[in-house]
Amino acid sequence: MLAVTILGNNSAIPAHGRHPTAQVITTADDLLLFDCGEGTQIQIINYKIRRNRINHIFISHLHGDHYFGLIGLINSFALLGRLQPLHVYAPAPLKNIIDLQLAAADTKLPFEFTFHALEQDGIVLETKYYTVECFSTQHRIECRGFLVREKRNARKVIAHKAFEYGIPTSYFHHLQKGEDYRKEDGTIIQNNEVTGENTLSRSYAFTADTIYDERIAEIVKQVNLLYHETTYPHAFEDKAKERFHSTTKQAAAIALNAQVDRLLIGHFSAKFEELDSFEEEAREIFKNTDLAGEGVTYLV
Amino acid sequence: MLAVTILGNNSAIPAHGRHPTAQVITTADDLLLFDCGEGTQIQIINYKIRRNRINHIFISHLHGDHYFGLIGLINSFALLGRLQPLHVYAPAPLKNIIDLQLAAADTKLPFEFTFHALEQDGIVLETKYYTVECFSTQHRIECRGFLVREKRNARKVIAHKAFEYGIPTSYFHHLQKGEDYRKEDGTIIQNNEVTGENTLSRSYAFTADTIYDERIAEIVKQVNLLYHETTYPHAFEDKAKERFHSTTKQAAAIALNAQVDRLLIGHFSAKFEELDSFEEEAREIFKNTDLAGEGVTYLV
Repeated sequence: MLAVTILGNNSAIPAHGRHPTAQVITTADDLLLFDCGEGTQIQIINYKIRRNRINHIFISHLHGDHYFGLIGLINSFALLGRLQPLHVYAPAPLKNIIDLQLAAADTKLPFEFTFHALEQDGIVLETKYYTVECFSTQHRIECRGFLVREKRNARKVIAHKAFEYGIPTSYFHHLQKGEDYRKEDGTIIQNNEVTGENTLSRSYAFTADTIYDERIAEIVKQVNLLYHETTYPHAFEDKAKERFHSTTKQAAAIALNAQVDRLLIGHFSAKFEELDSFEEEAREIFKNTDLAGEGVTYLV
Repeated sequence: MLAVTILGNNSAIPAHGRHPTAQVITTADDLLLFDCGEGTQIQIINYKIRRNRINHIFISHLHGDHYFGLIGLINSFALLGRLQPLHVYAPAPLKNIIDLQLAAADTKLPFEFTFHALEQDGIVLETKYYTVECFSTQHRIECRGFLVREKRNARKVIAHKAFEYGIPTSYFHHLQKGEDYRKEDGTIIQNNEVTGENTLSRSYAFTADTIYDERIAEIVKQVNLLYHETTYPHAFEDKAKERFHSTTKQAAAIALNAQVDRLLIGHFSAKFEELDSFEEEAREIFKNTDLAGEGVTYLV
């Protein structure tokens, strides 16, 4: 199970009823939040997200449209009596800002709060069910994208068949990993004779803010779903470059080169009320493209 | 001209479609903002407030529901290319928080930004048209309410009448102040013979967050419109006291003792979806009471 619910698809300033960046990732185990622009806690209410299942929040960079809603969310967690631990992964300077805001309000968080300063690329979180990696992008300030990969689930042992072949239960964990069994007489029992398929492991990548950067296609190679920012339409390519953002066609080119299954585009400039052309332009290059719609959940 | 537009009437956490505290005060000259909870910039868009006319922002205290939207508003002002100066009046620790947030985003404000640390009670802003005073309230942390008073306008000299009585133009500024004229022969020309009425000077007070405190009735004596917080209904008087908040009947008692014209109540606890009983309870004690409705403008 992997899905992405868009809470905000706009860039920089709120406009046209669109909100700043925030996405909820539903995993088999819990919810992750990628970025947390102003008003995210209100969007969480609007879209009936079970906020107490959010255990890990990732902040790509410290432009306000990606994190100004974080302190409000943390504060509401405290007021609502949350008890389970909360982890925030973000650029280091955010720690001091949060500490000052909590101190100014004389707020003692009733839950364990752990701040993980993002300092290098690679896996930043690993659970039984998934990993989250971060990767640097080129933006005006330090910025990172995130990539969630489900772990390959263990194969399901069909116990009665395994017993028929005389496989001891002590060997079952090898079967779960996909290994064959060699009987004492040398006969090989193929793994798929005694196990059922494991589910596919899915993956989702969020580029956050970035200039057009071919390296990203390598980093997100063959993910199932890629969210690539498209702050501007194609005609604004110069502007995009100057502002360290990307266009529709650039996002689609990354998706194509990375051979992803599907592309979501978002982080639209407030200049543009109508978004149809964003989708059309991207689809010219990469057909499986959708606009990231607020309140919409995309199964990965 | 004095009016108050409510952008948020809820306390602590957003709920029931209600937003955290923010109010726009329309004066003869410009707009003031009293408090700036999360999402205020979105409410400003929703209610078509001319944000570029906001020159002065007052923050009562550093609980998040009163200021978490400020940095987003400042940031959007910058992104939208605002040029005119902006003044913020707030508890001192907010300065450092704002500075860190601007630094983290590498944001240089394109307008002059002046932070006025609120350190004592009294007049904090005086323009040609009005004054703003702040007064300390008793809350869990340092907190201040605000009181806007229009300045008394000069009386209008009816020139042809003044000349009939032989009053020289050099004396007109005395007439504007309401003084009579004494002719050389000792005759007194009554001021109202030669001038027209000045408009009434109106006043509005916002208590911010406070425990029930009779001193407030003295401070806001005879203001035209009083906004007193009513976080809780009457039945929760003990809870209100414990949390340094007020109830409906306490707010109404202050309004009654202060002999104000009209009372607005707000800062409702998220516990309560229905607010009718808030209004009913307050009106039992002070008839001219209204609920502070979001998006509603109250002429003072």
